[in-house]
Amino acid sequence: MDTIAATPQPPYYAVIFTSQKTSTDDADYGQAAQRMSELAALQPGYLGMEHVGDSTGAAITVSYWSDLDAIRSWQQHAEHLEAQASGREKWYQHYFLRVCRVERDAEFKVASQH
Amino acid sequence: MDTIAATPQPPYYAVIFTSQKTSTDDADYGQAAQRMSELAALQPGYLGMEHVGDSTGAAITVSYWSDLDAIRSWQQHAEHLEAQASGREKWYQHYFLRVCRVERDAEFKVASQH
Repeated sequence: MDTIAATPQPPYYAVIFTSQKTSTDDADYGQAAQRMSELAALQPGYLGMEHVGDSTGAAITVSYWSDLDAIRSWQQHAEHLEAQASGREKWYQHYFLRVCRVERDAEFKVASQH
Repeated sequence: MDTIAATPQPPYYAVIFTSQKTSTDDADYGQAAQRMSELAALQPGYLGMEHVGDSTGAAITVSYWSDLDAIRSWQQHAEHLEAQASGREKWYQHYFLRVCRVERDAEFKVASQH
């Protein structure tokens, strides 16, 4: 799968979630992360998500949204609130979340060869 | 090293650079990436950088800046322009760059245990 989200023309919003996991790599983390990415994709105003994680437990997840109300609703979704609590209780050592307005973008792609 | 950048109170700006490398993992890519992160840190208005890459060649790099002028100057820096050209010529299969205004943030950190 391509990591890169196919977002519309700016402006739109991004939530940058940079995280460092605790050493314990719980099996339930992977399940919850999968469930959250599926659930996010069903929310009104969802535009896409990009996630890269490495073997040290560092990850950056960026989700894209049409507006701030969509972000607020998703952050207050009951099942998402439960996952956020588990994140603080056991999965994350440190995270930083930033809500941003995307103002311009640029894409580069190597042409497919046939 | 902690992946998470210690940025000031919003508002400030972020450049989200999501990329997929070509299969060729050039040694010169690593060198150039290292040089670019050192050079970026010397630019006026630089606030920090976060980078996570995985074994498939997917990466997300987010750099933080005080204002749009700082981003523009860095994008037009002669040595950075050269690296951008090499990126399009050989290192990247696909990338997407988004310039955003960070409007709010939230941090969580497990207290150190002594």
